[in-house]
Amino acid sequence: MSKTKRFFLSEDDIPRQWYNIQADMVNKPMPPLHPGTKEPLKPEDLYPIFAEELSRQELNQTDRWIDIPEEVREMYKYYRSTPLVRAYGLEKALDTPAHIYFKNESVSPVGSHKLNSALAQAYYCKKEGVTNVTTETGAGQWGTALSYAAKVFGLEAAVYQVKISYEQKPYRRSIMQTFGAQVTASPSMSTRAGKDILTKNPNYQGSLGTAISEAIELARTTPNCKYTLGSVLSHVTLHQTIIGLEAEKQMEMAGEYPDIIIGCFGGGSNFGGISFPFMRHTILEGRQTRYVAAEPASCPKLTRGKFHYDFGDEAGYTPLLPMFTLGHNFAPANIHAGGLRYHGAGVIVSQLLKDGLMEAVDIQQLESFEAGCLFAKAEGIIPAPESCHAIAAAVSEAKRCKEKGEEKVILFNLSGHGLIDMTAYDQYLAGNLTNFELTDADIQHNLDEIQNL
Amino acid sequence: MSKTKRFFLSEDDIPRQWYNIQADMVNKPMPPLHPGTKEPLKPEDLYPIFAEELSRQELNQTDRWIDIPEEVREMYKYYRSTPLVRAYGLEKALDTPAHIYFKNESVSPVGSHKLNSALAQAYYCKKEGVTNVTTETGAGQWGTALSYAAKVFGLEAAVYQVKISYEQKPYRRSIMQTFGAQVTASPSMSTRAGKDILTKNPNYQGSLGTAISEAIELARTTPNCKYTLGSVLSHVTLHQTIIGLEAEKQMEMAGEYPDIIIGCFGGGSNFGGISFPFMRHTILEGRQTRYVAAEPASCPKLTRGKFHYDFGDEAGYTPLLPMFTLGHNFAPANIHAGGLRYHGAGVIVSQLLKDGLMEAVDIQQLESFEAGCLFAKAEGIIPAPESCHAIAAAVSEAKRCKEKGEEKVILFNLSGHGLIDMTAYDQYLAGNLTNFELTDADIQHNLDEIQNL
Repeated sequence: MSKTKRFFLSEDDIPRQWYNIQADMVNKPMPPLHPGTKEPLKPEDLYPIFAEELSRQELNQTDRWIDIPEEVREMYKYYRSTPLVRAYGLEKALDTPAHIYFKNESVSPVGSHKLNSALAQAYYCKKEGVTNVTTETGAGQWGTALSYAAKVFGLEAAVYQVKISYEQKPYRRSIMQTFGAQVTASPSMSTRAGKDILTKNPNYQGSLGTAISEAIELARTTPNCKYTLGSVLSHVTLHQTIIGLEAEKQMEMAGEYPDIIIGCFGGGSNFGGISFPFMRHTILEGRQTRYVAAEPASCPKLTRGKFHYDFGDEAGYTPLLPMFTLGHNFAPANIHAGGLRYHGAGVIVSQLLKDGLMEAVDIQQLESFEAGCLFAKAEGIIPAPESCHAIAAAVSEAKRCKEKGEEKVILFNLSGHGLIDMTAYDQYLAGNLTNFELTDADIQHNLDEIQNL
Repeated sequence: MSKTKRFFLSEDDIPRQWYNIQADMVNKPMPPLHPGTKEPLKPEDLYPIFAEELSRQELNQTDRWIDIPEEVREMYKYYRSTPLVRAYGLEKALDTPAHIYFKNESVSPVGSHKLNSALAQAYYCKKEGVTNVTTETGAGQWGTALSYAAKVFGLEAAVYQVKISYEQKPYRRSIMQTFGAQVTASPSMSTRAGKDILTKNPNYQGSLGTAISEAIELARTTPNCKYTLGSVLSHVTLHQTIIGLEAEKQMEMAGEYPDIIIGCFGGGSNFGGISFPFMRHTILEGRQTRYVAAEPASCPKLTRGKFHYDFGDEAGYTPLLPMFTLGHNFAPANIHAGGLRYHGAGVIVSQLLKDGLMEAVDIQQLESFEAGCLFAKAEGIIPAPESCHAIAAAVSEAKRCKEKGEEKVILFNLSGHGLIDMTAYDQYLAGNLTNFELTDADIQHNLDEIQNL
């Protein structure tokens, strides 16, 4: 009867280094390009926008292990290790022979994995004499994490929140403000990028791409101010590998090794965070494991996008990145998983997908909430709408195990809780949510625009 | 530099018994009385409303230790032990020599300590063949916990939510519904108690007292249905002693013993939960520790109420309980700490206060949110408005330590997080919240009504 449900590491066992998968990749990611010269980017090219150390991490393809600064690791101890949980309740509800585990990042003080990178980014900024940081946020998870991390290291934070989230999720805004951040709905009239977009379309509800443009512009025009990003970039995913590194030790405590590893997919940082430490055994030792990215069907960059150089933002302020993309002008439907509404995938994940080292599935909105409600009842945790995509993929794998009578080990990342997203559950329970179908023409239209980049 | 911030127990060290302080009290609580006969209550008198085992626990004044059923302990393992946290951030912010610890009950899947008793109550109900449970909820913490616990043990749950919370906190309602509960705004037309109140006052915004009456009435009139309560009663506090029992072991891991223990105070279960296991050393060994209950100034049953027999609900369905009370018709101001808006204190705590074993302080609403925001910035966790009262009391003690240069050890219970209460923070940050002053006449008026009970 007595079965261990949760596995924790002692503070001593919390990893002391992040894992940089770029060092082990056979085909390295193609280089980001300077948008003007089309020359491969050097770290120095990023210094005007990002902290220098983060710029170097971004392009580091040689060092396999990167030390976690002691100051960051001390802050990790406030919520790490996060528990690895054996989902006995979900297994029972599905009557599956599969063993399902999830890494519970929702227990972080801000409710998601985003804090892992926010603390690192705020720390490096502080160390380099930066006084102000800017960023964008969609669902609000990243903005919340950065607001708190900025407070921890004594920085001022300015957050551009996608307007539709700003209005639909006032709780998130309040949390950021409680942590002392200045929050602005994007598009705003405070930047040229925002003004341009509002002039063209006064009722525009905003997108991550637009908010990124505004935050970068503010960073460029403010002294001692740097921009920070919550996903997509390689240094963000690097910081998130703490998830998988812990999970590896915890799976060992559980006496098992995952056959399938699943993460929801927005820009790739939580997926990469849980996957990459395991993937090194696939790359280096040929270990057979499936890595599954679960993206929303309404924003299918991995399953229906194109591998091409593209901008990371709408205004074209970022370097050109080699990625699976739907085009930087792609405007995703207003699904509640705001954190997954982004047009492109990070360069590492894009290369790995191209090389067949990982796979992707697309999940419809209704399927994601159905899985989320099942999980809530079985495990007692309301998952974030983003995380519901990972759960849906895990449920689907577990059902396949049942059909085939296979006792596979499934591990997924519960990237965050959904307590701030109850409006979405409300609408789902009331039958007011829909799926979104994209035609090939919808997608091709935006891809045509980037073919000459 | 490296300091342990969080202390956890292994699954093996999670307590196997709850602590029943009634067995050790020199002056036992006076007996609850049957409202008709005024005879002391026997467990059998409670069977029509409560599960039998819970009825026996309620009146048990002899057994010091009560076994935690294995099925309940297995569920505890999903979130227990909760961490004991050394609040280095808060200490720094206050520049105090005090050592501040908090027990973080907010990490429970439902976000508060309430699950500790909900699981126990649902388990006993199930074991005794009950199929349906009812309850009331104010802020929604207890209703959420019971909804999930009912789902765990396969029971149907019907929750009466105080109307003003139902309307102001729709997220809580959605969470309960996601767990499968049926939620009704109280007062409702579905019970005689509700109809009577609505007839007298059609715009009545509800109170815990009214919602209790409705839930009891539904339990009485529905086959195989029992009522459950989230605080006040002795068996609820018994289940909550898991908090203090864990904290005792964890303080030992930290190498310290608390001089002052603080809990916010609604009916007494979270306060008793963290205090009683320590208080046994005061009762049995004379150990000097201060136990401080922090109640809202707008509902000051401990600091300004009267020790008297009174009803637990508005309609007078409950037994008469010997307690510090403001009168069962006392209508507290609409402070955001909905869980503290209750007119009376549990019988055990009432007796302990009468005997001078504990003390109470009242906290104004603005002071509570000021402390909550300070804590959020210092520790990264948004506290529930209820918990803000405990934090305010801890802050005040820590400031006193600074003035006097005393290195006292302060332990408080962080009963829950405030992620569902961001409207309240929003209003506080916007300067739209007020304090509430009660005149002696306001209080006396309701006390006069109970003098012949």
